[in-house]
Amino acid sequence: MKKTLLFLLISVFSFAQIQKVEPAFWWHKMKNPELQILVYGKDISKYQVELSDQIQIKNLTKTENPNYVFITVNTEEVKNSSFKINLKNGNKTLDSYTYELKNRIPKSAERESFSSKDVMYLIMPDRFANGDISNDSQPNLTEKSDRTLPSGRHGGDLRGIINNLDYLQNLGATALWLTPANEDNEKKTSYHGYAQTDLYKIDGRYGTNEEYLELSRNLQKRGMMLIQDYVTNHWGISHWMIQDLPTKDWIHQFKDGEGKYGFKRSNYRTTSQFDTNVAEIDKQEALNGWFDTTMPDLNQSDPLVLKYLTQNAIWWIEYAELGGLRVDTYPYNDKIAMAKWAKAITDEYPKFNIVGEAWMYNPAHISYWQKDSKIAAIDNYNSYLPSVMDFTLYTELPNALKEEESWDKGMIKIYNSFGNDFLYPNINTILVFFENHDTERFNEIFKGDLRYYKMALTLMATVRGIPQIYYGSEIGMRGDKNKGGDADIRKDFPGGWKGDSQNAFDPKTQTAEQKGFHDFTQKLLNWRKGKNVIHSGKTKHYMPKEKVYVYFRFNEKENVMVIINNNEKDQSLDLSRFSESIQGITKGKDVISGKEFSISSENKMTVSGKSSLILELQK
Amino acid sequence: MKKTLLFLLISVFSFAQIQKVEPAFWWHKMKNPELQILVYGKDISKYQVELSDQIQIKNLTKTENPNYVFITVNTEEVKNSSFKINLKNGNKTLDSYTYELKNRIPKSAERESFSSKDVMYLIMPDRFANGDISNDSQPNLTEKSDRTLPSGRHGGDLRGIINNLDYLQNLGATALWLTPANEDNEKKTSYHGYAQTDLYKIDGRYGTNEEYLELSRNLQKRGMMLIQDYVTNHWGISHWMIQDLPTKDWIHQFKDGEGKYGFKRSNYRTTSQFDTNVAEIDKQEALNGWFDTTMPDLNQSDPLVLKYLTQNAIWWIEYAELGGLRVDTYPYNDKIAMAKWAKAITDEYPKFNIVGEAWMYNPAHISYWQKDSKIAAIDNYNSYLPSVMDFTLYTELPNALKEEESWDKGMIKIYNSFGNDFLYPNINTILVFFENHDTERFNEIFKGDLRYYKMALTLMATVRGIPQIYYGSEIGMRGDKNKGGDADIRKDFPGGWKGDSQNAFDPKTQTAEQKGFHDFTQKLLNWRKGKNVIHSGKTKHYMPKEKVYVYFRFNEKENVMVIINNNEKDQSLDLSRFSESIQGITKGKDVISGKEFSISSENKMTVSGKSSLILELQK
Repeated sequence: MKKTLLFLLISVFSFAQIQKVEPAFWWHKMKNPELQILVYGKDISKYQVELSDQIQIKNLTKTENPNYVFITVNTEEVKNSSFKINLKNGNKTLDSYTYELKNRIPKSAERESFSSKDVMYLIMPDRFANGDISNDSQPNLTEKSDRTLPSGRHGGDLRGIINNLDYLQNLGATALWLTPANEDNEKKTSYHGYAQTDLYKIDGRYGTNEEYLELSRNLQKRGMMLIQDYVTNHWGISHWMIQDLPTKDWIHQFKDGEGKYGFKRSNYRTTSQFDTNVAEIDKQEALNGWFDTTMPDLNQSDPLVLKYLTQNAIWWIEYAELGGLRVDTYPYNDKIAMAKWAKAITDEYPKFNIVGEAWMYNPAHISYWQKDSKIAAIDNYNSYLPSVMDFTLYTELPNALKEEESWDKGMIKIYNSFGNDFLYPNINTILVFFENHDTERFNEIFKGDLRYYKMALTLMATVRGIPQIYYGSEIGMRGDKNKGGDADIRKDFPGGWKGDSQNAFDPKTQTAEQKGFHDFTQKLLNWRKGKNVIHSGKTKHYMPKEKVYVYFRFNEKENVMVIINNNEKDQSLDLSRFSESIQGITKGKDVISGKEFSISSENKMTVSGKSSLILELQK
Repeated sequence: MKKTLLFLLISVFSFAQIQKVEPAFWWHKMKNPELQILVYGKDISKYQVELSDQIQIKNLTKTENPNYVFITVNTEEVKNSSFKINLKNGNKTLDSYTYELKNRIPKSAERESFSSKDVMYLIMPDRFANGDISNDSQPNLTEKSDRTLPSGRHGGDLRGIINNLDYLQNLGATALWLTPANEDNEKKTSYHGYAQTDLYKIDGRYGTNEEYLELSRNLQKRGMMLIQDYVTNHWGISHWMIQDLPTKDWIHQFKDGEGKYGFKRSNYRTTSQFDTNVAEIDKQEALNGWFDTTMPDLNQSDPLVLKYLTQNAIWWIEYAELGGLRVDTYPYNDKIAMAKWAKAITDEYPKFNIVGEAWMYNPAHISYWQKDSKIAAIDNYNSYLPSVMDFTLYTELPNALKEEESWDKGMIKIYNSFGNDFLYPNINTILVFFENHDTERFNEIFKGDLRYYKMALTLMATVRGIPQIYYGSEIGMRGDKNKGGDADIRKDFPGGWKGDSQNAFDPKTQTAEQKGFHDFTQKLLNWRKGKNVIHSGKTKHYMPKEKVYVYFRFNEKENVMVIINNNEKDQSLDLSRFSESIQGITKGKDVISGKEFSISSENKMTVSGKSSLILELQK
């Protein structure tokens, strides 16, 4: 009996196999020729790994878990399109994996990325359009499609997006940010995608890696680009590597009352990242605590983890020909590691843009996370992160429009927000938005009043930075996070599902209300496309008076005057106050209505209540 | 008739006189030997000015107003204790002024100044104590004493302060900041002193220059010091130089609807100082607009004005042996000029401290004004101002103590406030306070509840920086600015006037309520005097939990644990959370009650409701 067992065990060992290799392939002629390959298989570390073609293993790392081996190769040594990774037991080859090195697309390293020329459109793939009902549920993925569940899987997919690119292009969107499309095989609420379970594979319910690339290429053909939502902070608890941790320290684990290690919720106080008085226990809880029960917190400071995350991001950029990254829960990460991560990526792609979700309120705090921040320099820190999100403006805008005016309330909040631009190292690359997948719907706050949307979108589309809208913003979709939770702000786009009672993708079948939102958005965003003065012009703004905020975007050639009147009533505007900005100007044409206004320091003009004007000024 | 008039005019001219010389005298061996002397007299610029002893006039400036001459001398050329300024008409000497150069007190340049070792006590001289009833009203000063008027002159004076130095010293105050004591001869509401009409003369209703020096010397004998409130931004409209402007540009003047130049109110938006998008018209209105109708806004960017303000400040420091300056309405000034002003003063007195009233909320904005701020460096600016005021903490503290707790409300506001310390170039020199002469009385907000005062003063006296209290804080004086205006927060100190119904200066005659405030204050401030760990120790603070905020001040030798419990009820505190701060500690003794607590990571301890503890920890 004992002998039989021993024999069986030896047999199993002798048939040890390579179950996973990540990255599954790579590219020739990357700037950084070094590549770390994870090889996974039962007890694999007990055997030898060898490479074909006399390629050296520069480094081989084994961990406490025998199922992992990490090998580092110099890809410059690889002369062919592939080589073999051989798993050996003495002279016997147990298994072999053909590792492919592909050729890069032309000018891959020099690719352009999203910038202030773009308008970013945020989609939750599960909630936009269902282009392929055959993939709605998958045998190997736990959560099945069920549109009756607000927080369930609804079946939206990549094909649905591809099918509606005309709509998006016509709208004026130029960059598509999808919330994570990788496999999220959590048991429930997996539709948001932030608890990823495979970092190299598009979720089968959205489609395939090939369809993801198809989407990206279709976008590029239209002069548009794909932006991937990247999560460095955590993986899903069902991720295969979380289920079989390479090292105990791959994730952060906390001792509970019974002495077991695992979950502890983050205290979410990410200001601990720069608090010089912080207690270590609070900082650890903020950064290493889990974002949620199903989201184990990755230890980016572990070199193996960091290398994994870095190569994975580069793999997607190269494979899917991405135009940018958006990074989730940015300040929850190890900041030193994240600086290395961003630097490694931008070393490979010098023009590449990455925007981090640093959800803070004080612009000094947000600035901290942007590359070359002078505020981070106080700490001798540089994030190398090109772009951040203007959460100050996001927070202040609805307050500004709905509050009673006082010394520090009402329109002054918008003015004060832009008054802090000096704190940012590069104000033109920050993302401006009034809603996203984590916020109350703007149009809910203002109960469907189109006038507020117009004022807000006017602001987003004409101030410095990169405007971002959220699927459905442009048709006035509503949703109340406070009442209905996240699901309420992530409803299906009408017309995205066959048999939907109404289709908002087609201008002809939009409701009158949707059309009001849509046509304004379309006109404004398309106008913005060609306007250098908006993309890179200077700003001069005037202190709000009588609930009217006026600013100018200008360069040597162009001059645009934006007026936002938050009064219910028409307002007479004395233009003499703006004389430093309208010298030599005689008239201005509103880009939406086409109406002309006589503009000079001697004039007054009337601005309608709750409205905005975008005047292209002429001499 | 005509001939007679001509003769009379010539006579007047021939008898032209020197009416004023400012500074009236100066000192030998200042680091900067250059001195600019203002000589004033009717049509004086039409004559010649010569100096005795072959002293050269390095520069002579005449302005559009013939009544002024500004002469610059190199004081190193003056070998005697004085020289003569002769006003001549050809060979005829019309008038002569003996200009004295005094010897400096020993180690004048190296004098120490206020620091985190000090506790600053703010007094409004008119409202503290009337030590000399003979000076209450003055023939040459318009406003007469009348205690029945809340905003009138009440008769408090320097003698009243001198008489109560025992009281102040016993209380634990070490630095006295007086609101401006120079002559303010406005017709009404002159008691606040911020509309000065003579910058070289103590207001006669407060006493004399000599009494001011006497106060300073009496303080020094006690190891205390005098801090002068300096106003660079504006003078009173009745100032003799405003009434006869040396130049039109000496002050900022705005054209009104009728084409006349003069008053325009500031818009008070001093964020325009660093707003890169600011419109010039708004910035000019902020900085050059007048603080109030009686306060013409000085043009510090005019070299004559700047020199006048610089020399005047140095004159007072040298003459009155000052221990520091507090600068009013700091960000309303021309910032380039103010940097020169502060640098000139600190070049003369390298250890000298100056604290600027930069009333802003965002610590990034307040930091901007402190010397060597990295935030100001974004702008290539350096204020050379050693100290600023912690208006963030001032604003947040009462909210923190009275609000319902939530994610961003309640005690977390205090924690967040200290979380921004990294933004300051020198956090130890910032002034911390919970009230001053411009704010609601803290004890009004909390309706006389001593428990809140104790928590707040505990904080002020144990956190980094320089604590400042306001006369009457220590006896629980109340005052409601919202209802009673400024006068209500500037009431007379009880017992400062002969015949007052009650005397709070004498512990024996304090009411029980006053005694409660006073004894706590006295004990705490006197304890603080010798505590290096408070003056210069590091801080480690812990995220508030259950409305309890805990922090430690520590250095290599000492460790102080401060606990503030804002619950109505007693709170049990699990000390294991603080293990990184209490390693090796066994007990802690409360500095107020003397009570000992057993302190270790294994322990819990109970903290009384609405109370604070300051525990000196021991191994």
